[in-house]
Amino acid sequence: MPATPEPATPYHRVDVARLQRNVRRVAEQARAAGVALRPHAKTHKSAEVARMQLAAGATGITVATVAEAEAFVAAGVDDVFVAYPLWTDATTGARLRALLDRARVVVGADSVEGAAALARHCGSDVDVLVEVDSGHHRTGVTPEAAGALAAAAVGCGLGVRGVFTFPGHSYGPGLGPAPARDEATALATAARSLAAAGIESGVVSGGSTPSLADSLADPGPLTELRPGVYVFGDAQQWELDAHRPDDVALTCRGTVVSLAGGRVVLDAGSKALGADRPPWTTGWGRVAGRPDARVVLLSEHHAVLDWGADDLPPPGSRVDVVPNHVCAAVNLVDRVWADHGDGELEPWPVLARGPGG
Amino acid sequence: MPATPEPATPYHRVDVARLQRNVRRVAEQARAAGVALRPHAKTHKSAEVARMQLAAGATGITVATVAEAEAFVAAGVDDVFVAYPLWTDATTGARLRALLDRARVVVGADSVEGAAALARHCGSDVDVLVEVDSGHHRTGVTPEAAGALAAAAVGCGLGVRGVFTFPGHSYGPGLGPAPARDEATALATAARSLAAAGIESGVVSGGSTPSLADSLADPGPLTELRPGVYVFGDAQQWELDAHRPDDVALTCRGTVVSLAGGRVVLDAGSKALGADRPPWTTGWGRVAGRPDARVVLLSEHHAVLDWGADDLPPPGSRVDVVPNHVCAAVNLVDRVWADHGDGELEPWPVLARGPGG
Repeated sequence: MPATPEPATPYHRVDVARLQRNVRRVAEQARAAGVALRPHAKTHKSAEVARMQLAAGATGITVATVAEAEAFVAAGVDDVFVAYPLWTDATTGARLRALLDRARVVVGADSVEGAAALARHCGSDVDVLVEVDSGHHRTGVTPEAAGALAAAAVGCGLGVRGVFTFPGHSYGPGLGPAPARDEATALATAARSLAAAGIESGVVSGGSTPSLADSLADPGPLTELRPGVYVFGDAQQWELDAHRPDDVALTCRGTVVSLAGGRVVLDAGSKALGADRPPWTTGWGRVAGRPDARVVLLSEHHAVLDWGADDLPPPGSRVDVVPNHVCAAVNLVDRVWADHGDGELEPWPVLARGPGG
Repeated sequence: MPATPEPATPYHRVDVARLQRNVRRVAEQARAAGVALRPHAKTHKSAEVARMQLAAGATGITVATVAEAEAFVAAGVDDVFVAYPLWTDATTGARLRALLDRARVVVGADSVEGAAALARHCGSDVDVLVEVDSGHHRTGVTPEAAGALAAAAVGCGLGVRGVFTFPGHSYGPGLGPAPARDEATALATAARSLAAAGIESGVVSGGSTPSLADSLADPGPLTELRPGVYVFGDAQQWELDAHRPDDVALTCRGTVVSLAGGRVVLDAGSKALGADRPPWTTGWGRVAGRPDARVVLLSEHHAVLDWGADDLPPPGSRVDVVPNHVCAAVNLVDRVWADHGDGELEPWPVLARGPGG
């Protein structure tokens, strides 16, 4: 790896030893629980991390967009689930067909119209998983309606391989195992609904980082888990007790540009950290090794921190911020910098950065 | 301009006629008020829009980072204010010196340490404006302390051209002219503080889009205004009554991918719109021409809308979302698409996209 000067701040720094540890720990836990692991690659958007996950035993990856699928297939990944109810037009259909020549690609579906458009523009070589709503109330049919949609998809000529959900209502404090239970119940109901329509659910897929421990403890009907954030962790997961602060593997390094008003102002603003700020979080980000510090005001190029102590870092010094939502932070940069612990930083490109398409 | 097929959704679309109207209206208002206009280019990050602003009479542009300054100077802009208390090291100093060979560049300063680092690494060819806090409590010294900092900067060998502030506390509903009054008072006090130290404030610079009308109605000590968002407008400005919905010039076009639960789900998520969501806003974004629609749930690749009416758009149709914070939305994409009203879309590159550095 070539020696590189330290990048200008703000930049995203990956602790590769911690990343490896996170990747292996969850891979081993999934193996022990008897479920396949298909990590969501939208978190890292990195060929290096995807290869690490596959080497540790992941059966494939999950993505959210066709552009992500294209980038990871180009990087050598040959088994991709697009966990999204894609709307397929002629262009998207041609792109999906090109992918199907090179990889196993499965797509989400949550409506008859969506399944019909997929079949019309992509053809019958593509398989789908039926998306069900397990409590997040974003996309997905009700579990009871999964069989009818699966039958309609088969009627369009598509192969239906099973069901999936995202228990995104796991993002809240103090919820305990309820979201994982909701997920298991919804997926079991959906699989029965498919069975009643004569369709077997070879894949029963769920998973989110906050609910991961509960899903692993009692997988129920799950055959596959799709967590994303666990590779890096972030301030949200830290505050949900879903990721230990000592396991956080990506931080944004900023420079102290001001101590106005007795607070610490860094050059790492929302254009570096992302603006995600659910009401239950304690700020817009936290600080590695400083549990009392909080980002209390965030604008595009300023993070204003209550330091929580008197030993303010001097102007010009560096501070490592833990972003609230690491998937959003990674998507803001063209590369992250991998710290292998040998004093060098290696640039890792961010694949398919941007909103999708 | 070459014909281009419509881009894959989500993509950002600029209504050039509205943009031109916004640029000219504010330029004329500033001229009538007798203040210089130096628009903040972080909103648009576009050479095309900067040229439009300069052609309409702007005296130069404002940026937040050295990377933005470099990009706009490379695009031909020769007068740039970096409205940020930069921390200057040897690398940044060399980059600033290279810019000074090609353009007039002025930098913000809010600490003696920052001014000293600028002088040490960039030399005495660069001028500064002293930043004062007028109520936003982000960066900037108190108005009374501006003279001492200015004298220290002069002592470091820097030229001090005046004072500036950002009245960011204008971002809230129902505040009336109070933020503009705070700004005027703080800047007048700061200019007197400089005068007491024997330093003339040739530049007294302020401005934000929400407080713009009040500043224009009574500029007080202001010699210059630096609004940014007024070129496009966004849902925040709409809800602050600072930008008419009919003047919104940038929207994010998404595709309806699901109608789960009777709501409209678009493929334009936080990776297209940005996640900015101040507590006083009514959602994560609004819809052009649909005042009752709201983005009520936003994840990376999903915007879930309460449509506010029964005529839900069918799956596969397009919806134009007004992002909450247009500066954040523009920063997420590598290009926006300019609609000149002739049926063609022209790609406009986004300059210096990313967190800065």
